[in-house]
Amino acid sequence: MAKPVFILNGPNLNMLGKREPEIYGAQTLDDIARLCQSKAEALGLAIDFRQTNHEGELVSQVQEARENACAIILNAAAYTHTSIAVHDALKMADIPIIEVHLSNVYKREEFRHKSYVSGVAQGVICGFGAQGYELALDAVAKLV
Amino acid sequence: MAKPVFILNGPNLNMLGKREPEIYGAQTLDDIARLCQSKAEALGLAIDFRQTNHEGELVSQVQEARENACAIILNAAAYTHTSIAVHDALKMADIPIIEVHLSNVYKREEFRHKSYVSGVAQGVICGFGAQGYELALDAVAKLV
Amino acid sequence: MAKPVFILNGPNLNMLGKREPEIYGAQTLDDIARLCQSKAEALGLAIDFRQTNHEGELVSQVQEARENACAIILNAAAYTHTSIAVHDALKMADIPIIEVHLSNVYKREEFRHKSYVSGVAQGVICGFGAQGYELALDAVAKLV
Amino acid sequence: MAKPVFILNGPNLNMLGKREPEIYGAQTLDDIARLCQSKAEALGLAIDFRQTNHEGELVSQVQEARENACAIILNAAAYTHTSIAVHDALKMADIPIIEVHLSNVYKREEFRHKSYVSGVAQGVICGFGAQGYELALDAVAKLV
Amino acid sequence: MAKPVFILNGPNLNMLGKREPEIYGAQTLDDIARLCQSKAEALGLAIDFRQTNHEGELVSQVQEARENACAIILNAAAYTHTSIAVHDALKMADIPIIEVHLSNVYKREEFRHKSYVSGVAQGVICGFGAQGYELALDAVAKLV
Amino acid sequence: MAKPVFILNGPNLNMLGKREPEIYGAQTLDDIARLCQSKAEALGLAIDFRQTNHEGELVSQVQEARENACAIILNAAAYTHTSIAVHDALKMADIPIIEVHLSNVYKREEFRHKSYVSGVAQGVICGFGAQGYELALDAVAKLV
Amino acid sequence: MAKPVFILNGPNLNMLGKREPEIYGAQTLDDIARLCQSKAEALGLAIDFRQTNHEGELVSQVQEARENACAIILNAAAYTHTSIAVHDALKMADIPIIEVHLSNVYKREEFRHKSYVSGVAQGVICGFGAQGYELALDAVAKLV
Amino acid sequence: MAKPVFILNGPNLNMLGKREPEIYGAQTLDDIARLCQSKAEALGLAIDFRQTNHEGELVSQVQEARENACAIILNAAAYTHTSIAVHDALKMADIPIIEVHLSNVYKREEFRHKSYVSGVAQGVICGFGAQGYELALDAVAKLV
Amino acid sequence: MAKPVFILNGPNLNMLGKREPEIYGAQTLDDIARLCQSKAEALGLAIDFRQTNHEGELVSQVQEARENACAIILNAAAYTHTSIAVHDALKMADIPIIEVHLSNVYKREEFRHKSYVSGVAQGVICGFGAQGYELALDAVAKLV
Amino acid sequence: MAKPVFILNGPNLNMLGKREPEIYGAQTLDDIARLCQSKAEALGLAIDFRQTNHEGELVSQVQEARENACAIILNAAAYTHTSIAVHDALKMADIPIIEVHLSNVYKREEFRHKSYVSGVAQGVICGFGAQGYELALDAVAKLV
Amino acid sequence: MAKPVFILNGPNLNMLGKREPEIYGAQTLDDIARLCQSKAEALGLAIDFRQTNHEGELVSQVQEARENACAIILNAAAYTHTSIAVHDALKMADIPIIEVHLSNVYKREEFRHKSYVSGVAQGVICGFGAQGYELALDAVAKLV
Amino acid sequence: MAKPVFILNGPNLNMLGKREPEIYGAQTLDDIARLCQSKAEALGLAIDFRQTNHEGELVSQVQEARENACAIILNAAAYTHTSIAVHDALKMADIPIIEVHLSNVYKREEFRHKSYVSGVAQGVICGFGAQGYELALDAVAKLV
Repeated sequence: MAKPVFILNGPNLNMLGKREPEIYGAQTLDDIARLCQSKAEALGLAIDFRQTNHEGELVSQVQEARENACAIILNAAAYTHTSIAVHDALKMADIPIIEVHLSNVYKREEFRHKSYVSGVAQGVICGFGAQGYELALDAVAKLV
Repeated sequence: MAKPVFILNGPNLNMLGKREPEIYGAQTLDDIARLCQSKAEALGLAIDFRQTNHEGELVSQVQEARENACAIILNAAAYTHTSIAVHDALKMADIPIIEVHLSNVYKREEFRHKSYVSGVAQGVICGFGAQGYELALDAVAKLV
Repeated sequence: MAKPVFILNGPNLNMLGKREPEIYGAQTLDDIARLCQSKAEALGLAIDFRQTNHEGELVSQVQEARENACAIILNAAAYTHTSIAVHDALKMADIPIIEVHLSNVYKREEFRHKSYVSGVAQGVICGFGAQGYELALDAVAKLV
Repeated sequence: MAKPVFILNGPNLNMLGKREPEIYGAQTLDDIARLCQSKAEALGLAIDFRQTNHEGELVSQVQEARENACAIILNAAAYTHTSIAVHDALKMADIPIIEVHLSNVYKREEFRHKSYVSGVAQGVICGFGAQGYELALDAVAKLV
Repeated sequence: MAKPVFILNGPNLNMLGKREPEIYGAQTLDDIARLCQSKAEALGLAIDFRQTNHEGELVSQVQEARENACAIILNAAAYTHTSIAVHDALKMADIPIIEVHLSNVYKREEFRHKSYVSGVAQGVICGFGAQGYELALDAVAKLV
Repeated sequence: MAKPVFILNGPNLNMLGKREPEIYGAQTLDDIARLCQSKAEALGLAIDFRQTNHEGELVSQVQEARENACAIILNAAAYTHTSIAVHDALKMADIPIIEVHLSNVYKREEFRHKSYVSGVAQGVICGFGAQGYELALDAVAKLV
Repeated sequence: MAKPVFILNGPNLNMLGKREPEIYGAQTLDDIARLCQSKAEALGLAIDFRQTNHEGELVSQVQEARENACAIILNAAAYTHTSIAVHDALKMADIPIIEVHLSNVYKREEFRHKSYVSGVAQGVICGFGAQGYELALDAVAKLV
Repeated sequence: MAKPVFILNGPNLNMLGKREPEIYGAQTLDDIARLCQSKAEALGLAIDFRQTNHEGELVSQVQEARENACAIILNAAAYTHTSIAVHDALKMADIPIIEVHLSNVYKREEFRHKSYVSGVAQGVICGFGAQGYELALDAVAKLV
Repeated sequence: MAKPVFILNGPNLNMLGKREPEIYGAQTLDDIARLCQSKAEALGLAIDFRQTNHEGELVSQVQEARENACAIILNAAAYTHTSIAVHDALKMADIPIIEVHLSNVYKREEFRHKSYVSGVAQGVICGFGAQGYELALDAVAKLV
Repeated sequence: MAKPVFILNGPNLNMLGKREPEIYGAQTLDDIARLCQSKAEALGLAIDFRQTNHEGELVSQVQEARENACAIILNAAAYTHTSIAVHDALKMADIPIIEVHLSNVYKREEFRHKSYVSGVAQGVICGFGAQGYELALDAVAKLV
Repeated sequence: MAKPVFILNGPNLNMLGKREPEIYGAQTLDDIARLCQSKAEALGLAIDFRQTNHEGELVSQVQEARENACAIILNAAAYTHTSIAVHDALKMADIPIIEVHLSNVYKREEFRHKSYVSGVAQGVICGFGAQGYELALDAVAKLV
Repeated sequence: MAKPVFILNGPNLNMLGKREPEIYGAQTLDDIARLCQSKAEALGLAIDFRQTNHEGELVSQVQEARENACAIILNAAAYTHTSIAVHDALKMADIPIIEVHLSNVYKREEFRHKSYVSGVAQGVICGFGAQGYELALDAVAKLV
């Protein structure tokens, strides 16, 4: 059976829908997981959708993806801007990596303009809310 | 009749297919225009696809879009990183703006990491080659 | 029953009393917890006093505070200066947040002058050792 | 007959009145041209009022002013902050140059605080809306 | 009776006419006061013209203006570039503030390019010598 | 008789209650002086409460405190960020110094994040409005 | 027949001979064109000598050179320091590129020390006035 | 019995041998553990060899070393460059600390040139692959 | 009668002998005044020795020197590093100016390395304690 | 016969044992030379041990090593931080290069953190005093 | 007899032909000396061709040139980027100075973009290999 | 017999009197040596006056001073700003060191404002031409 796409979500994304709705919208992370599931099925893909607040856990998930996934869709949230450990884990994975952000990070604080993910990703999609995950799955479907 | 999506392309994009294929791929700008045309039709959208090497011309096209388009998909190429004039033109347009780049600019020279477009766009899509335009049309279809 | 004040302590604070006493004094974290307990009782407040070395755990505790606490007193120690994840968690909590440091961080290394907590806190108290926690409780008593 | 004052306007100023009225006011560029015309007549001056979105065109107009104008009033808009070419053109003109901005650029984004015009102008007037052009004409009247 | 315009002059401006005439011209501060008086009368305005070498005095004058003046024309000279205290005083005045400089500060040392006044002023006029005060009065006449 | 605590207030604090109430609250400086008086009495401390707009005066008051005060509570306002003279005066006082700010300066402009006081103070309290002075008196009571 | 060398000149070079003769000398651009013509003939080379004030036009000329020229001698003037668009156009040309400046740009303003051309050119010649073009032709003759 | 040397390894080092072999070589972390075991026995030392992807866990291990180890050999990998928490933990350990890196970090990305470990370590050894651990054990043998 | 040398001393120098003796020595400012008096007499010079904590006062004294002194020996203390107002006053004085510091400012905090006095002084003497004033008088004797 | 290892020492290392013993220890350079000799013999290596205060001489020694040595152990001392000439010489040597420092340079002044040697060396060993040379010889023995 | 042109070569240029041929080509410094000799003869010039690894020696040669040469062609290699001493020596020579580099330094490391020579040279020629020396002789021939 | 004062002069000072007289005056270095000789005799001091263009030689002279001199007067010229090697040599000398410059370096290029000598010197004297050496001898006479 084909390997799934790992859709990995970083810190505080478990609070979606409760947190700053004017930036992130009213959808919860479960809503997004369901959206991804539907989209993936339509594209003939399987997904493994996860969230963690721990940098080390995110590193381990990326390492696991290297063996068990066909691609990674990563919304590393705050760790995007601070984690060289995640950067290093991504760098050794030989599968497509797509960086996603719900909001347009370039409209926000200066410290969110630096990404340790972008330099090791295939591409970046940001500012489209939950739809960004769907677009990322479209991109994966073409890449794998 | 519905207003078209303006798909505006900046300097040197007329050379696509001839230029640094390891970065931009073998497709010409005409290939991409045809791709966009198909995609737009499938989404029930009209498009107006243009290219210019002139910053002032790009400014004028964005101004025109404000009256005559329902959305802008903009690959400003080099002007992305240097043009406050394009930034100002975009800022007064009250329609959705999507920034697209063929390559993942964050993997390239430092001076390509600064964007005067991102801060006034709805979102950014980069690194997916010609498919980036299709994803942008998907996003437009949802926004308009 | 009234919600408690979460008093959250970051990495290495479990070593208090053993570590660089010329900077942090001879009191252990347990001593401080007892001090806070007394002070809180005097003010008619309940407290929930915790320590963790894990950034992700600190993020989760702040998220939990959003539901279960009336205020947060946070000594994020090293994560003060590096954690955008903690910053993001604090930003979505709608309760008073007070930043405390035992030492006067502005007298120490340059890298301790940057705080990701200050910008999302009600106020900052630093340089008063364990008394700083008591002052913070005073402030909380007035705010809640 | 006396040479006119060239009043040169840069990119996006043709959109005045339609664009961000809270910053630039409701007057159109035509309104300002008429205002300048009246003021100039009162001062016994002739004017030549132009607008262009093209950096190269602005360069050429400044070159032309060197031969055919008695002074330049320049609102270079976005090119103020990016154009060394305009700077060079101004530098070789031996006539008075006055920099005008409708808004107070020092209250806006950091990138608008840098001016390639100020260093080669006689003086700067900003923040007074259309009246700034009138004040500039007063200054010209005294200088020529 | 109508409140006067406070015209406040900072350190060393009492030396005008004696100091670096190639930069500031041969007019003394008294000459400028007389010029302002005439201009104000023509505009139907009263003025209160002062000079001080003391930052604290300038702060107090600005505070006084808040009660007793209809507008402030401020040439803060050296304090323009260093005084957050003057900045704070200006910020709480709810009357129009106009920043004036005799010389074009942007042609001079780098440290004169930073202004703590510009960000809290209505507008800026610089480089026109004593006439700058007259232009500022014109602007005031329109604003009040 | 015991020496008093000098409570020194810098420029523009005499305007409290009139100025930007959304930042500083509606209390006047006299209100705060009364609050401090009550608190001090409760703690068995005497106070000497002053305000000045002059940097040099603030320097002299700090010098005087060295002889005549048991501690300094200092809200240097704008001079916090610019005055090395105040810094030098504080450095030679061998009594406890506590830095207070009404607002949380770390939430405000970048230029308010630099403090010449913090490095020579025992500790810092900011963001708690007038209560910050009371907390500082609590801290003084413990230190002296 | 052999392809010509494109000798491309950027903004304001049409003013040579009229502009700041102490920096650029008294020769006009036509004089330089004639000098180049003679030199090229002596070397058995053809030339195509152009000037434009437009960045976009310069981009197009460089693109054209890619097809129709054997080499480019480029004096991009002000665009040297600001144009990523010209940089990108040069990068895709597979023919020798030589950067020429009349003056020694390293003796002039800091902002003229940055070149977007140097990094994609074979070599740089500056400070020799019109003779610089002749030296560049010598270099071309050896390279092609 | 003598306390062991703690040999602590940070994030992604569990992937050694699978990851970028041109930088880190083909040895796995188990190979290195065995190498260290042999070397330590030859020197009469005991070792405790660990790896973790979690910053907080690394902090706890360093704290534990303070009680139970005679020295620390630390390859903090990515956390070398970002973790003030690890820095703080090391700072309070009163035993020798040696920083080791497999690759020469100074030949790699700029962000790997900053180390929060070096300033609190006895010395640094980098660029010698697995042999670096053996050299560190030699150094420990001399220091303890 | 010959004009005196103005010896001007800035903020906190009135505290000499009481303040940080390891940096400034045990001499009081009166001791230094007497030392200068003796030295001046030996050189046939008159002096006028003053101290002030006020920047504005220092400005006025420098202005006065312009009329009434043959030279200025200036130890501006903290205002050395922050006062453009003093800089401007010095700039218009056409008499020799000598900058003196008791301590070697280059061995102290970074913010004491910047001097607004040095650029408008004849020369600088620092690090020789009270003797520095004597050396400065020697220099004056030669210059006037 | 096998080529020796060049052990090259830069400026001031001839003063070892006399200079700042708290940083460099009491051993003289001759002591270290003897230590290296013993260690080298044990490893079956020959050495050529030199010291110079001259940058140019160090350049020449590195050039000579290229022909006559099997490896370079380099303690360039102050030239580590300033010499591009030594950097260039090392870059053309095709033999292993090991950078050694007696002290941990990362604990010292900021200007000692920059190394022109590290980027062209195999590896770096610092902070182990004279033992650092022995460790470097161990590393050489494995590399050659 | 006419004075010769001094052609001075800095550190490591004696290794030409052996060192990084992909950057510098296969020619030795002797080859270049011969090339210069021929070219100079053709132009009716004498040359004095030297190389040194010592900064101080290069300083002395430039000083000597001041007396004995008609011009200097200088390839200071690494000292270009670090030597203020060479800069100062060049500054006092009243003869034409031409800076030459074999490679295009602007395509190489950032630290090679800074030149202490350019600001005191007539012009710069770089990127043309040995031919650069010939072009420099052409330029000299015209200048002297 | 008493040890002499070493008066050490760096690169290009041998050219004094020939070089930029508007900055350095018309005196030759021999003139200055004679001046120092007279002054020293008057003070009962012996001197050893030297000059070198070589950084390494200057290092050796400073090392020699450590044994054979009672003080160092150092005009390191260009090496003041670039030589950490000279800094290190000075740091280990336990005798008074006085930094002298003929010109006021703070009035010259930015790169002359950084001194590696000041931080390890007793004091600094600059801007007094040859008299600066005399003042330095006065200071030495008091210190030794």
